[in-house]
Amino acid sequence: MIYKDTNEILPKILKRSDDYEEKYLSTVLSIIDDVKKNGDSALKIYSKKFDNNPDENLEVTKKEMISAYDNIDEQLKLDLQLAKKNIEEYHKNQLEKSWFIEKEGTILGQKITPLDKVGVYVPGGKASYPSTVLMNVIPAKVAGVKEVIVVTPAKDGKISEIVLAACYIAGVDKIFKIGGAQAIAALSYGTETIPKVDKIVGPGNIYVALAKKLVFGRVDIDMIAGPSEILIIADDSANPEYVAADMLSQAEHDELASSITITDSPNLAKEIEKYLNIHLKSLPKKDIAEKSLKQYGGVIVVKNINEAVELSNSIAPEHLELAVKNPFELLPKIKHAGAIFLGHYTPEAMGDYFAGPNHTLPTGGTARFSSPLGTYDFFKRSSIISYTRDSFLKQRENVYRLAKSEDLDAHALSVKVRG
Amino acid sequence: MIYKDTNEILPKILKRSDDYEEKYLSTVLSIIDDVKKNGDSALKIYSKKFDNNPDENLEVTKKEMISAYDNIDEQLKLDLQLAKKNIEEYHKNQLEKSWFIEKEGTILGQKITPLDKVGVYVPGGKASYPSTVLMNVIPAKVAGVKEVIVVTPAKDGKISEIVLAACYIAGVDKIFKIGGAQAIAALSYGTETIPKVDKIVGPGNIYVALAKKLVFGRVDIDMIAGPSEILIIADDSANPEYVAADMLSQAEHDELASSITITDSPNLAKEIEKYLNIHLKSLPKKDIAEKSLKQYGGVIVVKNINEAVELSNSIAPEHLELAVKNPFELLPKIKHAGAIFLGHYTPEAMGDYFAGPNHTLPTGGTARFSSPLGTYDFFKRSSIISYTRDSFLKQRENVYRLAKSEDLDAHALSVKVRG
Repeated sequence: MIYKDTNEILPKILKRSDDYEEKYLSTVLSIIDDVKKNGDSALKIYSKKFDNNPDENLEVTKKEMISAYDNIDEQLKLDLQLAKKNIEEYHKNQLEKSWFIEKEGTILGQKITPLDKVGVYVPGGKASYPSTVLMNVIPAKVAGVKEVIVVTPAKDGKISEIVLAACYIAGVDKIFKIGGAQAIAALSYGTETIPKVDKIVGPGNIYVALAKKLVFGRVDIDMIAGPSEILIIADDSANPEYVAADMLSQAEHDELASSITITDSPNLAKEIEKYLNIHLKSLPKKDIAEKSLKQYGGVIVVKNINEAVELSNSIAPEHLELAVKNPFELLPKIKHAGAIFLGHYTPEAMGDYFAGPNHTLPTGGTARFSSPLGTYDFFKRSSIISYTRDSFLKQRENVYRLAKSEDLDAHALSVKVRG
Repeated sequence: MIYKDTNEILPKILKRSDDYEEKYLSTVLSIIDDVKKNGDSALKIYSKKFDNNPDENLEVTKKEMISAYDNIDEQLKLDLQLAKKNIEEYHKNQLEKSWFIEKEGTILGQKITPLDKVGVYVPGGKASYPSTVLMNVIPAKVAGVKEVIVVTPAKDGKISEIVLAACYIAGVDKIFKIGGAQAIAALSYGTETIPKVDKIVGPGNIYVALAKKLVFGRVDIDMIAGPSEILIIADDSANPEYVAADMLSQAEHDELASSITITDSPNLAKEIEKYLNIHLKSLPKKDIAEKSLKQYGGVIVVKNINEAVELSNSIAPEHLELAVKNPFELLPKIKHAGAIFLGHYTPEAMGDYFAGPNHTLPTGGTARFSSPLGTYDFFKRSSIISYTRDSFLKQRENVYRLAKSEDLDAHALSVKVRG
């Protein structure tokens, strides 16, 4: 579909999923409660019920991990290792150092400490991807997290070998065969077997997302990920076949995925449509991609590229491709986007797997206020304050009066008693 | 109370509030729904009902702000301005810069952009503090946020003059007389009068906290703050009167507040108890402080300071004072704490108002995984990826195989079509 009136397509893109889903709430609350009370025995019951997992042993052994690694294709092994290296290198740039400043006897600063334990949810079934493992585990390891624990549902007791191999490559410390809201509950409260963690990250279905939302506060979580999206700003320098392929790469993920191109070239728009139809035919995930494109996809023709940028900023897309002649000239105008792919030779897929930046990105307009998953998600800061007697005495009167203005007399007392 | 067996006191401290409160859930959900559907008219009904606010006009005028500022005590004005300067200076250290790295034609990087609009919740009534305004608004302004909007309930239509003056000093752009879950809903969805914001920060009661939790995802929020706490590690160099005053300064906040001292000196423990009793007597908030100390306070005597540090790390206190001879020697051993106050002349009160670091800190053990409110809460990051044709061609085979391994054929197609 080619759109000229953006009001036809915009509301559809921005309304793909509801933010809190009351109808699942009671189910998820009762699962959390059950795991909190009954620990492992509740987990085993849910694993049988939801995953048909007959296994009594919830933990994957180191031996199983290594043997999965040994079994995968040698070339794939090298590709995953190279991806790991790139992801590691990029995320090292996000490390922060503790700092101190001193002024007239007062020392102020900030101390950086990695989290102790992190849980990573890896979906099972069709959406069980090695890249999920690498992208979630490596930033935690770079930050210095000592223990990274993967949970993943084991349909019929089995976990994908590539996922296990990716866990081995990424340096995962423990893997448990549990999924759904019950896995989130186990990581939040701890059970006989599952350690309580400090933060839970990773994608999941609506039950997983809702459970994460409910335990937030007790443990930290990453953003609640919605359906994926790509927005491509293209001028007449763009190759319509490239653009069409990139749109399809998003559309094949999910019927709810959204693939939008905004261009100032009506001719390019027509050509993109043509290539979409050509490549759709031979795509194994044709049905999914077709539905996604029909509902949430399209090419929007605007008057000029500035208008395209404005529209893009109002959508705040997860993935933004700048398929234009001078992409770096547009960059300063981009306000909201999870990841920005510049130029005609940077398809989103390069970032999904390999380039180094994280593929866990804010969706559904949340790029307005949130960031890609990063090393900064796995450390925290503590403020540092130190006064000498002299510097304290110089400033205590100000604090005394401020405390008094808030009727907090013991606060005032605490500066008054010191001499 | 002096404790020698930490098992008596620890479970009490860590269990002061429940993490999600089912009994308030339906009320809060229905308020959010109402505001979402009925906008300003719902807000006016709630303001009348909960705050006895007869005012039809929800917005505070610039004139009202300035006149409040003019009316407050001149000395207090200077104190607030000095506090503002310190807070601003400290938070400038938390600014981050965009960065790029180039390697063999591939450019990777991270772009920093401030949020557009931020909402700050300021409680009404007894807990309506100017310091809340400064500590929440200034980091947003330092980050470069264009529009900072304060919401605060107006009991009988009135807002404290000091709070309004603090808003003026901090550079707040708009103030609205609304509170409770309805204020959070208004900031999340927008109404005829209230702008939809990107992030909501600031303390509030259980309704406010629960509403923030429910809208999280649609907008960003800061941490859910629980009751406040202080932990003091003291050796025999500590002055028991100082320590007692600092404990009281936490206890006067809230019956649920927790004030704990851990010391290796039984004698100091006794002396602290003595001074607690002396100063309690004359404290205006005696009743609150006494209840807090009785339920969640105490002095724990341990064998040595290392044991005190371990215990402190297991509690992960919001405020940690190191009232010891060589506080900087202990610092590397501290793993989890919101803010760390070093030495005998750094009472918590100095940080609550004035020193510069933020007083919005992780409570209830969440310092294990979260940080003080900071400038970093008001900007977000976008990943940058750019390949040249050459660098793309060198790496596309790896990406092609990785995409194929995940059965994502359109991803593979998008790297294959480019030549």
